[in-house]
Amino acid sequence: MVVVMDERATEAQIENVVARLVEMGMDVHRSTGVTRTVLGVVWQGRPDAGIIQLLDGVHEVLRISEPYKLAGRTFKPESTVVKVGDVRIGGDEAIVIAGPCSAENEKQVRTTAAAVRRAGAKVLRGGAFKPRSSPYSFQGLGEPGLQLLQDAAKAENLALVSEVMEIAQIPLIEKYCDMFQVGARNMQNFGLLRELGHARKPVLLKRGISATIEEWLLSAEYILSGGNTEVVLCERGIRTFETATRNTFDVSAIPVVKKLSHLPIVGDPSHGAGRRDMVAPMARAAVAAGADGLIIEVHCDPDRALSDGAQSMFPAQFDRLMAELRIIAPAIGRSICVEPTPRRGWGT
Amino acid sequence: MVVVMDERATEAQIENVVARLVEMGMDVHRSTGVTRTVLGVVWQGRPDAGIIQLLDGVHEVLRISEPYKLAGRTFKPESTVVKVGDVRIGGDEAIVIAGPCSAENEKQVRTTAAAVRRAGAKVLRGGAFKPRSSPYSFQGLGEPGLQLLQDAAKAENLALVSEVMEIAQIPLIEKYCDMFQVGARNMQNFGLLRELGHARKPVLLKRGISATIEEWLLSAEYILSGGNTEVVLCERGIRTFETATRNTFDVSAIPVVKKLSHLPIVGDPSHGAGRRDMVAPMARAAVAAGADGLIIEVHCDPDRALSDGAQSMFPAQFDRLMAELRIIAPAIGRSICVEPTPRRGWGT
Amino acid sequence: MVVVMDERATEAQIENVVARLVEMGMDVHRSTGVTRTVLGVVWQGRPDAGIIQLLDGVHEVLRISEPYKLAGRTFKPESTVVKVGDVRIGGDEAIVIAGPCSAENEKQVRTTAAAVRRAGAKVLRGGAFKPRSSPYSFQGLGEPGLQLLQDAAKAENLALVSEVMEIAQIPLIEKYCDMFQVGARNMQNFGLLRELGHARKPVLLKRGISATIEEWLLSAEYILSGGNTEVVLCERGIRTFETATRNTFDVSAIPVVKKLSHLPIVGDPSHGAGRRDMVAPMARAAVAAGADGLIIEVHCDPDRALSDGAQSMFPAQFDRLMAELRIIAPAIGRSICVEPTPRRGWGT
Amino acid sequence: MVVVMDERATEAQIENVVARLVEMGMDVHRSTGVTRTVLGVVWQGRPDAGIIQLLDGVHEVLRISEPYKLAGRTFKPESTVVKVGDVRIGGDEAIVIAGPCSAENEKQVRTTAAAVRRAGAKVLRGGAFKPRSSPYSFQGLGEPGLQLLQDAAKAENLALVSEVMEIAQIPLIEKYCDMFQVGARNMQNFGLLRELGHARKPVLLKRGISATIEEWLLSAEYILSGGNTEVVLCERGIRTFETATRNTFDVSAIPVVKKLSHLPIVGDPSHGAGRRDMVAPMARAAVAAGADGLIIEVHCDPDRALSDGAQSMFPAQFDRLMAELRIIAPAIGRSICVEPTPRRGWGT
Repeated sequence: MVVVMDERATEAQIENVVARLVEMGMDVHRSTGVTRTVLGVVWQGRPDAGIIQLLDGVHEVLRISEPYKLAGRTFKPESTVVKVGDVRIGGDEAIVIAGPCSAENEKQVRTTAAAVRRAGAKVLRGGAFKPRSSPYSFQGLGEPGLQLLQDAAKAENLALVSEVMEIAQIPLIEKYCDMFQVGARNMQNFGLLRELGHARKPVLLKRGISATIEEWLLSAEYILSGGNTEVVLCERGIRTFETATRNTFDVSAIPVVKKLSHLPIVGDPSHGAGRRDMVAPMARAAVAAGADGLIIEVHCDPDRALSDGAQSMFPAQFDRLMAELRIIAPAIGRSICVEPTPRRGWGT
Repeated sequence: MVVVMDERATEAQIENVVARLVEMGMDVHRSTGVTRTVLGVVWQGRPDAGIIQLLDGVHEVLRISEPYKLAGRTFKPESTVVKVGDVRIGGDEAIVIAGPCSAENEKQVRTTAAAVRRAGAKVLRGGAFKPRSSPYSFQGLGEPGLQLLQDAAKAENLALVSEVMEIAQIPLIEKYCDMFQVGARNMQNFGLLRELGHARKPVLLKRGISATIEEWLLSAEYILSGGNTEVVLCERGIRTFETATRNTFDVSAIPVVKKLSHLPIVGDPSHGAGRRDMVAPMARAAVAAGADGLIIEVHCDPDRALSDGAQSMFPAQFDRLMAELRIIAPAIGRSICVEPTPRRGWGT
Repeated sequence: MVVVMDERATEAQIENVVARLVEMGMDVHRSTGVTRTVLGVVWQGRPDAGIIQLLDGVHEVLRISEPYKLAGRTFKPESTVVKVGDVRIGGDEAIVIAGPCSAENEKQVRTTAAAVRRAGAKVLRGGAFKPRSSPYSFQGLGEPGLQLLQDAAKAENLALVSEVMEIAQIPLIEKYCDMFQVGARNMQNFGLLRELGHARKPVLLKRGISATIEEWLLSAEYILSGGNTEVVLCERGIRTFETATRNTFDVSAIPVVKKLSHLPIVGDPSHGAGRRDMVAPMARAAVAAGADGLIIEVHCDPDRALSDGAQSMFPAQFDRLMAELRIIAPAIGRSICVEPTPRRGWGT
Repeated sequence: MVVVMDERATEAQIENVVARLVEMGMDVHRSTGVTRTVLGVVWQGRPDAGIIQLLDGVHEVLRISEPYKLAGRTFKPESTVVKVGDVRIGGDEAIVIAGPCSAENEKQVRTTAAAVRRAGAKVLRGGAFKPRSSPYSFQGLGEPGLQLLQDAAKAENLALVSEVMEIAQIPLIEKYCDMFQVGARNMQNFGLLRELGHARKPVLLKRGISATIEEWLLSAEYILSGGNTEVVLCERGIRTFETATRNTFDVSAIPVVKKLSHLPIVGDPSHGAGRRDMVAPMARAAVAAGADGLIIEVHCDPDRALSDGAQSMFPAQFDRLMAELRIIAPAIGRSICVEPTPRRGWGT
């Protein structure tokens, strides 16, 4: 924290601010320039800078960024690689996670899983709990949905990620899946984050719709500080004044996060764009900007999907996208699945 | 929902869209104008308009607003009055809720409660659970904090509101308090909202930091549709590009909500402004704009508060504010507590 | 400017940054704490902080706010009172400016001017040049419109303000009006601002739709630095994600500006709200928050107005609003026109 | 426009609304459904929908988008190719425009122009007029700067684009350059746009920092409706709550614009990112998302640039970026300059 005194601050005011900071247990370094005095302050934790701001003679309090420690590159300069089942996110290969918004029935899950594996996806996605903003919509299959997803993931030799909505669901998701997904609305559900800090499986942490990158990294810090070091960040769009797209997919968050943090980051162009025909351009943009992977909604029959149909790709569109990504990835020294994972089959 | 066809849409395209809508179970009214065809569509629930948007020949899909029913004035034209203990929010009197951000110790709670009662507050506020955006900050006293708050509220003859963070805390808050507070971060925690729909005490529902008014009313709908009709809305600031204030306190949400919904709305200028010297102007603005009340952070010694000190008022500032509000309220046909509630005292 | 070095910055890196700053002509004060080094930097003008940001070992560059000088309270602690004709804005009386969006014809201008004077307005507003966001809309009457406005203002004994769109219009507006209005879209038209710095009449400077308060004050600085010290700021709503209102009228900008700057500030609830039934609540809120006045669109027949009809008040609504404001103003130690200015009449 | 009546609207209210619309010269088609009546309305120009919104019994007025005509794909389905000197923007080749923020002196302009040509740029950029948000900063060289830029462009066989700030500068820019650039702050300077509609050279129209895509296309419409059909759109970042980047470069605007309009669109990652190390990722993202080109700030010695140094690339960085773009472009069926334009040389 840096306390900038007013140009007209009196010596008494400066001394009072220093005394107050010392009383709060801080270590203060005073630097008196020609026009004003600046106080450099070192502290533990996060002091309530607001209080200092209100003292007489204070011009403003500048907070030094990065109150997060474990999530920052300062703490750990080398990039983290997160293992999801047998898949490694954050390494040389950009990983594509794909699948339906929610599990609806066996045929839908199986067909979609097979299609995304053939196209080159390495992880299956799919939701079993779907609390929606209207109380009058489809709310998910629950545990039977997780079973369907696990069966399909095993058959297709894919890892599996599914969303955890509340603490009570942790054991269930942990039983069926290889990775927890924390949705945008839960990015600051600190109770949930704290529990996931004790879980033994990795976490895909989506950015809240109006969260700054700093807040997002602080949320990752909650998980890391509990002992779970396997966190993958996921950009999925922020809320802005623009209404032509549902959200504004913040592609620039990708290089910013790569610079500030050692954690991998993937892009979610499906939620970022909100409509099928915008998914491919935004997926290409995310990979070109340096994302460690993508998470994409694909449905065997999107026009009849029970949720998010408009933003789910047809399998053929997804195929085409994967081909485009294979051209782009080398531009940033990356590969994208050339050879699909072999299918394991039902009986194995 | 209104489907606007392209000016160049062919008859075959129009018929395909109509067929598709009918297949989805909708009732379609076609209106063919000189330049284009418009389809009026009636449905139950919320269809995935996005799918229709993608059909050939469709120019755009216009959603008719207000998917909420129970929260809307169309459903219930007369304004709702919510009872919190013996206090009525939404009537002729604008109600002021005040107290510390969090309960810290007996003396702090008692002194603050006494001060706000004397100034004219009718409800005591105070938190016992304080999950903060940094894992390294003060996290609240828990149940002992609720006990301190209840004792003080009883002694001062005030009703009590405190924040519920997760489903598991509902019985505890219900035991000690007269009203649940749902914080901005939980505005779309649909599991929690659904449970509160079955609770027997009223709910103060804060607006999410990036929630539209429509989403906020849909969240109220979750509670109402569970059978709990006692919901008070609370505006507390939205996230914008402006950095001079922590959030932008959206005063205009007050008249908009009064028009769209029958539910009472109060303003939270403490969080809206984020600094003590901005609280009074924003409190006055909220009442002048027609708010049914206010919720304000007051602390007996704000400079030493363990949380939100910078935005907590001194008791003397709060006194002065109440005097100003007494002048303003009649301008909108309202009163504000002229005679403080008599103290009940410790022994009674 | 404060340069915060990385916790792991080497001595060589620190010295390189210092050398670079000195080379750029700055005065550097070094303060070495336990965990990191902080450099306080004094300079003239606005250095390109971005360059420093990119040097090795730099954690971040914190800019000390308020590069504006003439507009700030540090420079001039006492509040400025601006004279518009015989009217004083920024004093004990909150001043109401009112009138039609644009001058349409003699009858409309005369009738509206008479109505707003009777209700207590002191300044007439009205536009003669109306470039609209669509090239296919009504574009204003031009100079004949200014003549109509001036005639009406004289007859009613009101001062007059009208918008100047470009440098070439300055002489015309100066001839007919008592005050220039600079619209939100021109807030950063620096060529225009510079010219107005040499004009001999006061300027009403609207905030740009996405301008921070700091940028707005910097725009005022352009005018002040040219020698024209008569600037009144005008808040008129900022662009946010909320769509229920056209813009979000940022009431909190009023106390923020009063704290940072000595210049008067008025609120424009008509543009801030965008619809007639929201104007009165927002006007009351602005005055309650401490605004030095208001600018309000009133039209003798708003449903037939050629522009902004939906947000223009009926004269009777405006009357009622003025009565409400007279109740509110004393709460902040202000008055609002109790006795309307006497009419001067046509013949005088 | 579609007028949605309230579910409880009476027949008299409906008839009054219809009568009012007819009186305003509109053609109304009534469609009465089970729950409510919907009115489809056809009109010329842009009626003030707000007035209708306020009539009794009206639930809401839904505006059918795309009031722009000439800029829309409905009007002209095939993509437009704009000629800038000998360069074609909007065709199979993605065009890179590069150069310094502002012309500073002959050496800087010549060296930078030579470097960007060798790397594959086809158009030189550079500013001569630099009104900045602070009145105390470098303001550009004026006409001598244009001369320097033209000389360098000729020598290197590049086309030239430079910013026009006001109407009076049009002849000057037209004399020296192949294309006018309209900056973000002037996107709604309708006087300037109208004049450019009569100019005989193409226009690069930047998006305003808080402009919706619809407003941006309406601004293009101003130019097109004046007869100048050569407009290239330029995305350069919008203002959001995120502060880690100066603006949020809205990559998704690229596919949205390609869908809505036939005009070419280029990305400006320099202003979008605001710092040099973020320019390459965002440039790659823009091309991957389908941009028709890029405009990038390059400076022979960016650390000593008089403006925008922090976001200007070193020539070597720009070289590397061009190599990356050559890999990406084929993914979207595009090429990027493989063979640099031959230099013309000073003497020819």
